[in-house]
Amino acid sequence: MQTGFTVDTAGPGLYEITPRIARWLSGQGGDGVLTLFVRHTSCSLLVQENADSDVQADLRAFFDRLVPPADDARMHYLRHRAEGPDDMPAHIKAAMMPVSLSIPVDAGRMCLGTWQGVYVVEHRAAPHTRRIAAHLARG
Amino acid sequence: MQTGFTVDTAGPGLYEITPRIARWLSGQGGDGVLTLFVRHTSCSLLVQENADSDVQADLRAFFDRLVPPADDARMHYLRHRAEGPDDMPAHIKAAMMPVSLSIPVDAGRMCLGTWQGVYVVEHRAAPHTRRIAAHLARG
Amino acid sequence: MQTGFTVDTAGPGLYEITPRIARWLSGQGGDGVLTLFVRHTSCSLLVQENADSDVQADLRAFFDRLVPPADDARMHYLRHRAEGPDDMPAHIKAAMMPVSLSIPVDAGRMCLGTWQGVYVVEHRAAPHTRRIAAHLARG
Repeated sequence: MQTGFTVDTAGPGLYEITPRIARWLSGQGGDGVLTLFVRHTSCSLLVQENADSDVQADLRAFFDRLVPPADDARMHYLRHRAEGPDDMPAHIKAAMMPVSLSIPVDAGRMCLGTWQGVYVVEHRAAPHTRRIAAHLARG
Repeated sequence: MQTGFTVDTAGPGLYEITPRIARWLSGQGGDGVLTLFVRHTSCSLLVQENADSDVQADLRAFFDRLVPPADDARMHYLRHRAEGPDDMPAHIKAAMMPVSLSIPVDAGRMCLGTWQGVYVVEHRAAPHTRRIAAHLARG
Repeated sequence: MQTGFTVDTAGPGLYEITPRIARWLSGQGGDGVLTLFVRHTSCSLLVQENADSDVQADLRAFFDRLVPPADDARMHYLRHRAEGPDDMPAHIKAAMMPVSLSIPVDAGRMCLGTWQGVYVVEHRAAPHTRRIAAHLARG
C-alpha cells in the first residue's frame, strides 16, 4: 500500500499525475485515504482545475509576478543565490503550495470533484526528475 | 468512517464547520486521524482563529488585495476570464490555501488548540454548494 | 501511536524538529503515515531545505515583505490590532503555510528527500511554547 511515482519535468508549470495515481489505486481497490508527498523543496503538489489549460498558465503568471527571479531588483535582499536566480523563488513558492495531499478514497477511486486534477508543480527552470511518495491507508 | 458534508455559501468569506465535524466524530469515538478534502478548485479549507471575527474580515481583505479581481488593471495578464472576474482569482487563492486537512483525533475529539476552528473559505462571489469529503482512520 | 511535541520559540523563524520526530518514529518502527498538526493559528509547519540556512533567512524576509506588520501604512485596513502589530500578519502567514503535514513512513523512517527538514515556523515576535499533535497510522 506504499509506492512511488517519478515525474520528469521540463521547466516551470503543472504536470498532471491524476491518471497514474488513479490506475494504481484501482489496482488496490477498497476505501481509505491516499497520502501524496513530494520529496523536494523546489516543487509542489497541487489539486487544481483540469478543464481550461489557461488556468495553469494564469497560475504560473501570478506566482512568477508574486515571487520574481532573484536577479529582479525587487528581490535584492535574497542571500541564497548560488544555485541560480530561479532557486530561492522556487523554495518560496514551495512554502506557499502543498508538499503533501490527503485524499479520501472510495472503492478504489479518489474523491475528486468533477473539475479537480492532481498535479506536480515544477518551480525550477532546468529539467528535473521529481519523486513522489504515495501511501494508501485502508479502512 | 467515511462521510460528506455540504456547505451552502453566500459570497466570499469563512464558514465555520467545526461543530458539525465534532458532532460526527463524537458519534464515532476512538482515536485516529480525520482527513477533510474539499472537492472544488475555487474554495479552500482553513484552520483559523475562532475568537475575533475581525480576523476573518482581515484575512479576506488581505487576500483580496494580494489577488485582485480579473478586471483590475494589475491582473491584465490573466487569460481565464470566461467565468467572471472572481473566478481566476479564486483558483489562485485555492492554490495558496489548503485543499485537504489532516487532524489527529483523540477519544472522538479533534486535537484542535483553544483558538482553532475549521472553516470552508469561499472565494467566489455567487452562492455555491460546497462538498467536503471526510474520512476517519481509526487507530 | 499518538503523541505531542512542544517547541519553545524565541521570535520569528524556522525551528527544526526533524531529529525529534525521527527519534520517536524509530522507536515505533513499521510502515505507515505520520500526521503532524500544529495547535495554533499564528505559527505553521513547513517542510523546507535543511542545507543552507540562508534559505530560512530569505523565506522570512520574503514573507515579512509580503505581509508587513499592522503598523505599516500598507496594512492600514486591518481591524484586528489588539494583540500587537505582529499578530494579524501572523494569522495571514498561517493561512498561507501548512497547519498539517502528512508524511509516509517506511520502516520507521519518514520518506523525506535528501534536502528536506521538518520545521515549526514561528510568526510571532514574543517567545511562545508551541504544541504539535503527532499521529502514526500503521499499515
